[in-house]
Amino acid sequence: MVEAAAVPLQVPFRWLLGPGPSNVHPRVLQAMGAPPLGYLDPHWIAIMDHLARMLRALFRTRNPLTIAMPGTGTLGMETGIANLVEEGDVVVVGANGFFGERMAEIARRYGAVVAPVVGEWGKPLDPEAVEREMRKHPKVKVLAVVHAETSTGVLQPLEPLAALARRYESLFLVDAVTSLGGSPVEVDAWGIDCCFSASQKCLGCPPGLAPITVSPRGEEVIGKRSRPVRSFYVDLTLHHSYWGGQRLYHHTAPVNLLYALYEGLRLILEEGLEARWERHRRAARALWAGLEALGLRLLVPEPWRLPQLTTVLLPEGVDERGLRQALREEWGIEVGGGLGSLRGRVLRIGLMGMNASPSAVLTLLTALEALLPRLGFPVPAGAGVAAAARLLGAGA
Amino acid sequence: MVEAAAVPLQVPFRWLLGPGPSNVHPRVLQAMGAPPLGYLDPHWIAIMDHLARMLRALFRTRNPLTIAMPGTGTLGMETGIANLVEEGDVVVVGANGFFGERMAEIARRYGAVVAPVVGEWGKPLDPEAVEREMRKHPKVKVLAVVHAETSTGVLQPLEPLAALARRYESLFLVDAVTSLGGSPVEVDAWGIDCCFSASQKCLGCPPGLAPITVSPRGEEVIGKRSRPVRSFYVDLTLHHSYWGGQRLYHHTAPVNLLYALYEGLRLILEEGLEARWERHRRAARALWAGLEALGLRLLVPEPWRLPQLTTVLLPEGVDERGLRQALREEWGIEVGGGLGSLRGRVLRIGLMGMNASPSAVLTLLTALEALLPRLGFPVPAGAGVAAAARLLGAGA
Repeated sequence: MVEAAAVPLQVPFRWLLGPGPSNVHPRVLQAMGAPPLGYLDPHWIAIMDHLARMLRALFRTRNPLTIAMPGTGTLGMETGIANLVEEGDVVVVGANGFFGERMAEIARRYGAVVAPVVGEWGKPLDPEAVEREMRKHPKVKVLAVVHAETSTGVLQPLEPLAALARRYESLFLVDAVTSLGGSPVEVDAWGIDCCFSASQKCLGCPPGLAPITVSPRGEEVIGKRSRPVRSFYVDLTLHHSYWGGQRLYHHTAPVNLLYALYEGLRLILEEGLEARWERHRRAARALWAGLEALGLRLLVPEPWRLPQLTTVLLPEGVDERGLRQALREEWGIEVGGGLGSLRGRVLRIGLMGMNASPSAVLTLLTALEALLPRLGFPVPAGAGVAAAARLLGAGA
Repeated sequence: MVEAAAVPLQVPFRWLLGPGPSNVHPRVLQAMGAPPLGYLDPHWIAIMDHLARMLRALFRTRNPLTIAMPGTGTLGMETGIANLVEEGDVVVVGANGFFGERMAEIARRYGAVVAPVVGEWGKPLDPEAVEREMRKHPKVKVLAVVHAETSTGVLQPLEPLAALARRYESLFLVDAVTSLGGSPVEVDAWGIDCCFSASQKCLGCPPGLAPITVSPRGEEVIGKRSRPVRSFYVDLTLHHSYWGGQRLYHHTAPVNLLYALYEGLRLILEEGLEARWERHRRAARALWAGLEALGLRLLVPEPWRLPQLTTVLLPEGVDERGLRQALREEWGIEVGGGLGSLRGRVLRIGLMGMNASPSAVLTLLTALEALLPRLGFPVPAGAGVAAAARLLGAGA
């Protein structure tokens, strides 16, 4: 039994250009360090009310049930599924990436009859394939899809799927973990019944919170459940009693993380959502141009390509682990490797939140230009940053 | 849809002398503000390894499966129950307080046959009553009790119950949310199979993490489950794959909260566990003497009284909400009100972590001396702090 205290905490600075977390703005880190308040302090309750209002603005919704769950994005996913689904319900799930498959797994654990719509990793779901699956069942309770699939870098167009969910009287559940704050997410206009996200990607906050919103239709279904949600921790009825008017104790709010989210949302709304989406697109276009100028190929065709997460194919013979290690150790840059069926075949490059910036793009391209030739893949010197700079400069 | 950013975050300072969160040491808040690292960064993995070692020292255990769950204490509770229990298993639960009843509720949701041992709020469980209940069932899978019941202020002696669990070949599950770091918790020596806690009480860290440890016997039972844990988020097999050697992705670690826990644990081990327990006892004894000198009565008899959470009976005619509001608004002090069957009848005073200190005790007693007479309960001037000071001074 080691009784000795560990060595002092020392944390190196990293450019977090992987699938998340992303770098956090100093204002957010500073806000997080404010002293804790009790979970029923009137001052704290006022902060929660502001938070809920800002979350509604972020999700573009009027849903009363709009909160931040006290856990990571995976908890957000579980919250959506566990509350909407009862044992024996049919759930049609888009399975064209790691996180779609995870939704299927969670739904199965909660007793759903899962009907996966299997699709190619790197392409969006075909609405016709989704409809073919939905037609097979007398009643589809939930249609669940990932908006921005972090494992592949695909942006799934949601409006055709929302129309299907309406036509088949199903609830529409959307994973917006990687999209929210970086790409348009229109909960009310698109007709999403439950949408969840995470704090550490395009919201630019530390990991540990999962914003979630539920439509009145979704709330009604939850209110009519035949038995309570299996998991007490994710039971939205109880969370709503705390965030809503009753202020009933359910858990001790993670106040410091919520301070951070508060400041992160203030930064987002100060910038404006449209401006922020455009900034993500602009940085991504510059990155893509730079990568292609280096002779690299991107996995996802442009119409479906996520701005905040780019999957770039590794050139033959270049070792993924070696490249990522050199980026980390020599340049202080983190990028992600491939997940699931893409393991070893791609790098995943995230430009999220404050990292959707010229400095992140130029630094990464310069690092790749320095490292790739050493790892056996010659690149035209200076071509990457030059191509990117043309799209980042004043005339772009 | 409000698009405007909310007002700047402003957080008042509070003495957090309620049931938690407690005040957080500046070193902990500072550590939390370090920049995030990716969840597989080798530097981060080294930090996790140090964290696990410090958690083992804190729990007094050699259990390999010793981690911090990414959520509040309630998630810790749910993790323990959901992993040890399968549908139809018999769980004997001590139900002599709010959190014991919550354990019963969670076990029911996960399909257990719950056999509550109902006890008086304000007294510990009688081991004979527990044994009478255990004898009724051919097989009791889990005996679950709360070590430090935050709703009543009772410290439950655990060794007789651990002996029962061994005799009946049951797993022994202990809620140490309020005890860990403030009172002795001896996981290995007492034979606890699963013990969980929370970051924001005697550990003095921000809320949002739930340390948990599982014995090899408990791990074996989890490994032999007939079906996976219903909740994906709390499945300890998956968490262990991330914290253990395989480093398989399960969730994005809430790194900043874990930095805070790291520094909080360093402070604890620098002080020494025994010295910390004694500091909690010393502050509590001074508080109790001061409260009694003011003519107030304590709910729990001394042998079972928790040092870190004192339930004091409200004098007849004194309005709980009025008193708590005056403490908060005029003195910046938070204390808790009664939960469940004690609502309106008690104040709950916490002296946890850095608040187990002379300054917290003396400030609170002075505030009570100032406020109680105004609320209709005359007290002897200066008697509270004088009685406390005698137990805090050099000769004490």
